[in-house]
Amino acid sequence: MLVDGKHYRTIWLDDDGRTVTIIDQTKLPYEFELLKLRSVEDTCAAISNMQVRGAPLIGATAASGIALALNESNSDETLLAAKRSLANARPTAVNLAWAVERMFADVMPLPAAKRVQAAYDLATVVCEEDVKVCEAIGDNGLALIKDIAAPKRSGSVNILTHCNAGWLATVDWGTALAPIYKAHEAGIDVHVWVDETRPRNQGAFLTAWELSSQQIKHTVITDNAGGHLMQRGLVDLCLVGTDRTSATGDVCNKIGTYLKALAARHNNVPFYACVPSTSIDWNISDGVADIPIEQRSGDEVRKMKGLANGSELIEIELFPEKHPVRNDGFDTTPSELVSGLITERGVADASEAGLRALFPELSLARS
Amino acid sequence: MLVDGKHYRTIWLDDDGRTVTIIDQTKLPYEFELLKLRSVEDTCAAISNMQVRGAPLIGATAASGIALALNESNSDETLLAAKRSLANARPTAVNLAWAVERMFADVMPLPAAKRVQAAYDLATVVCEEDVKVCEAIGDNGLALIKDIAAPKRSGSVNILTHCNAGWLATVDWGTALAPIYKAHEAGIDVHVWVDETRPRNQGAFLTAWELSSQQIKHTVITDNAGGHLMQRGLVDLCLVGTDRTSATGDVCNKIGTYLKALAARHNNVPFYACVPSTSIDWNISDGVADIPIEQRSGDEVRKMKGLANGSELIEIELFPEKHPVRNDGFDTTPSELVSGLITERGVADASEAGLRALFPELSLARS
Repeated sequence: MLVDGKHYRTIWLDDDGRTVTIIDQTKLPYEFELLKLRSVEDTCAAISNMQVRGAPLIGATAASGIALALNESNSDETLLAAKRSLANARPTAVNLAWAVERMFADVMPLPAAKRVQAAYDLATVVCEEDVKVCEAIGDNGLALIKDIAAPKRSGSVNILTHCNAGWLATVDWGTALAPIYKAHEAGIDVHVWVDETRPRNQGAFLTAWELSSQQIKHTVITDNAGGHLMQRGLVDLCLVGTDRTSATGDVCNKIGTYLKALAARHNNVPFYACVPSTSIDWNISDGVADIPIEQRSGDEVRKMKGLANGSELIEIELFPEKHPVRNDGFDTTPSELVSGLITERGVADASEAGLRALFPELSLARS
Repeated sequence: MLVDGKHYRTIWLDDDGRTVTIIDQTKLPYEFELLKLRSVEDTCAAISNMQVRGAPLIGATAASGIALALNESNSDETLLAAKRSLANARPTAVNLAWAVERMFADVMPLPAAKRVQAAYDLATVVCEEDVKVCEAIGDNGLALIKDIAAPKRSGSVNILTHCNAGWLATVDWGTALAPIYKAHEAGIDVHVWVDETRPRNQGAFLTAWELSSQQIKHTVITDNAGGHLMQRGLVDLCLVGTDRTSATGDVCNKIGTYLKALAARHNNVPFYACVPSTSIDWNISDGVADIPIEQRSGDEVRKMKGLANGSELIEIELFPEKHPVRNDGFDTTPSELVSGLITERGVADASEAGLRALFPELSLARS
């Protein structure tokens, strides 16, 4: 997508064929800064510190991490250690495990001398596939937006999104924002309600920045506001991403997504999750009970960064340390509240049958 | 309630019998600062700037504002102008209109020379009544908490609250926190989930400060988290305040309350609003359609204050001005989602019949 008119992806292999560059997303929206990854340690740190985030991008970055590890040493031990440390970098997004397993399964059987190039090649394939998958989600979601736009006599199609499931959360295009980009390209008048998304403000920091860069109309709101807007008829559609979706269609996504799904149901607003098949965990049938939810530091709630005096990026403390904080990173929306899952193969019913119909070969491979 | 072990109310008449002192709540939790109100202009500013906030306290402060106006001039014109400017200071809390109307109705018929003292006396009565009403809400809510505590074999009674409906929102005791204070006094093990309450963070700034001052266990969470906690069985009860409740039991309260009510219903968690009768608007039967919702500045979302370097109170900008913001102050939870209304006369069903049964004389006076 465009940054100051120039096309970027979130991750790419440098001309040296060995170094990986990412956008340091912790610096946005204040600075657009690139970061070089040269080792698996760099990669794990970038994932843990959320310099890259978003389930698909975490997967793509982890794939590159395997290649970076092998570039330092092509031994079995290195590969096994890299697999282990990457898999533990963050717990909730299933794309991470998926990408690491895929890399491992392809690269491990090769003679040591062939592993490095094979790993870089496969990491590139993982990235290219992600772009295609996201663009297909965009096209499939576009059809839904067209259906909503058609009967509207005037005004924008108002779409509410939570967190950032835009191109910054993937290699390009995004998941939840891909249909919006496609609709904008198709000349449909779209307006996006951007949930601030506490505590890390990915909505206000990343989604607003993305939409503004593509010149798409948007309004930042607090996470508290969406229910009220739906009650007033100001939301036509909710589109969210997912960090892991169960084989039965339960959608685990950024904390707070569940509350918006409840409000959507109560006000008859369609609520769709945009789900690349790489985010489906075919081994989990009860997403609410069984998807692990990351517990993050209370400092994310207690502290906040922003600009002082219009230019100096600083972190402030909102309230004293004596107050305990709990900071769950995600929640799970039960499938009953989900209107459908927009995948790269089409829109699936949020159910085991719905997902199985679109991905028979993957659902059968369930372990 | 206690501040550093010393008992305070949120508003009082000074020894001179003319000046009114409030706690400047915009300075909490960083500084505990008192502010003198000497005119109706001071009073309107304190209400608009949210140096005092919370529906009952806004009402009590507005009553004092009438007295302060008359202290400068006891004419009809002054009284009418004061009534008008106070009534317009904030739109949603009905206690404001209630207090101003009551003062006006009592004071206007008096000879000019008698108005000043009568107004101060009545403002004092309004404050004293508020304390009694809140304490009664505490006692009535305590019975509910006891019922929840009794069958629990171990652990705390976990109560989720949104915004600040504590003693800082009233003259003393609070509404939603009054039952919690009573339960703590009664030796019940209570723990409070404190919603941060964006954009003004009254939960993290005021409720956490209040609970900590009374040494009550609490944990700050983001506004996004409550649904997830309820889904995991970590919430036994939701208690919230109200800025205006319709005659039919629709509860208008701080933006985001509605989302918690939806989650409570979906997870069979009891959801009660604590409603002094002064917060009931007997003229409104459809709270969702007819309660006016304050639109506040987008800067409340875009900017945030806190401590830099551990001591310097500053305001930072979270994201650039080019992103539009919408900032609705309140939302309305339809009565169907409310388990009951805890009033000073007992717990009412959230319905016209329920409120009429407890307040027959007020519901009949409906205009």
